[in-house]
Amino acid sequence: MRTHTHQEFEAELRNLKDRLLAMGGRCEQMIAMAVRAFEDRDEALAQEVMEADHGMDEDEVAIDELAVRILALRQPVGRDLRFAVAAVKASTDLERIGDEAVNIAERAIEMEPAGRLSRPGSKLPEMAQRAGAMLRDALNAFVEEDANKARDVFEQDDAVDDLYGEVMGLCLDDMKDPSRIADGMRICNCAKYIERIADHATNIAEMVIFMVEGRDVRHGNL
Amino acid sequence: MRTHTHQEFEAELRNLKDRLLAMGGRCEQMIAMAVRAFEDRDEALAQEVMEADHGMDEDEVAIDELAVRILALRQPVGRDLRFAVAAVKASTDLERIGDEAVNIAERAIEMEPAGRLSRPGSKLPEMAQRAGAMLRDALNAFVEEDANKARDVFEQDDAVDDLYGEVMGLCLDDMKDPSRIADGMRICNCAKYIERIADHATNIAEMVIFMVEGRDVRHGNL
Repeated sequence: MRTHTHQEFEAELRNLKDRLLAMGGRCEQMIAMAVRAFEDRDEALAQEVMEADHGMDEDEVAIDELAVRILALRQPVGRDLRFAVAAVKASTDLERIGDEAVNIAERAIEMEPAGRLSRPGSKLPEMAQRAGAMLRDALNAFVEEDANKARDVFEQDDAVDDLYGEVMGLCLDDMKDPSRIADGMRICNCAKYIERIADHATNIAEMVIFMVEGRDVRHGNL
Repeated sequence: MRTHTHQEFEAELRNLKDRLLAMGGRCEQMIAMAVRAFEDRDEALAQEVMEADHGMDEDEVAIDELAVRILALRQPVGRDLRFAVAAVKASTDLERIGDEAVNIAERAIEMEPAGRLSRPGSKLPEMAQRAGAMLRDALNAFVEEDANKARDVFEQDDAVDDLYGEVMGLCLDDMKDPSRIADGMRICNCAKYIERIADHATNIAEMVIFMVEGRDVRHGNL
């Protein structure tokens, strides 16, 4: 009987991990779609991103409910307890990554119709690709409970910050032409949204270390 | 003995609530300071906001540790369980409100030296005051476990969104003068930061309903 219950508990934890990974996969897809919509001025694709966001909201609720269920019925201790608590915090980050993808899609729809992105805008796909990779690595570290993998994520954040600075500089330059102000601001905003996605991935990586090592590296020393 | 343990448990929950309220009070103060620094171009005050943020980071860790401790040692069920889970989610929102106040303080330092704020900038204090009130109401609803008070917070969010739209419109207009582009963007960014503070307050209010009524109103029907 004890073993049976233990197996059930393991299955529930596995289910929680699978849901986090699935939600993360949907985030990555939304980011990629939103940035492609921005690049190609593809309004239909932007609309798809906004529709996909409803699924994210459901994912967050489902993850939280599963974690609360595990806490209530299994009353885990130590690392498993920290895992369940970290999961409800990570679901918030994932849901907000979805919101950032929607923000990008909204700016995509507002952009002036034109053939190609201007110079600052052309940096966005690279930024998005890097932020997406950070998210994937952070979630893998999370479900594998691998603190070293989590630390790798922190290092990747610098490259995204650098790209953000580049985009901002190029935009301010572009916007000296008044006809480019509105689009310049949209590009700046998208760069900011992507930078925030990278921050959310970093938050998830920090959770991994809290979970695995039982100490809190947020806001400080690694 | 049973009663003694129960009293201890009540004291721990009370402690958790007090810490959330104290952290929320610090948030409100940081928001007010940051916006005053922005209004008065007061670099020293902006620096104070950045220093205050370290305390916020410690607050988040302390709240999470206390909640995990309650979950581990008391293994609460029902509403108390949901309260502990909601507390670790709310601490994230509070910590990010601190980050937004720091963002405002950073923009305050970057602003061109000048006597008075321009027209769009003069809306920021009102926006900030409203967002601060939402946060205060949301946290009171949280610790009093009052779902009706929480619902009042959702309604206040519309006024902040309207002010955000106004600031954006005024800024885009102002920025037709190229010498005002850089400051115009800073004002827009600050409006966005304040709007996000209001969103965090709304998130906390949604947690209250999850906690009190055991159903999740996030992302949907109230």
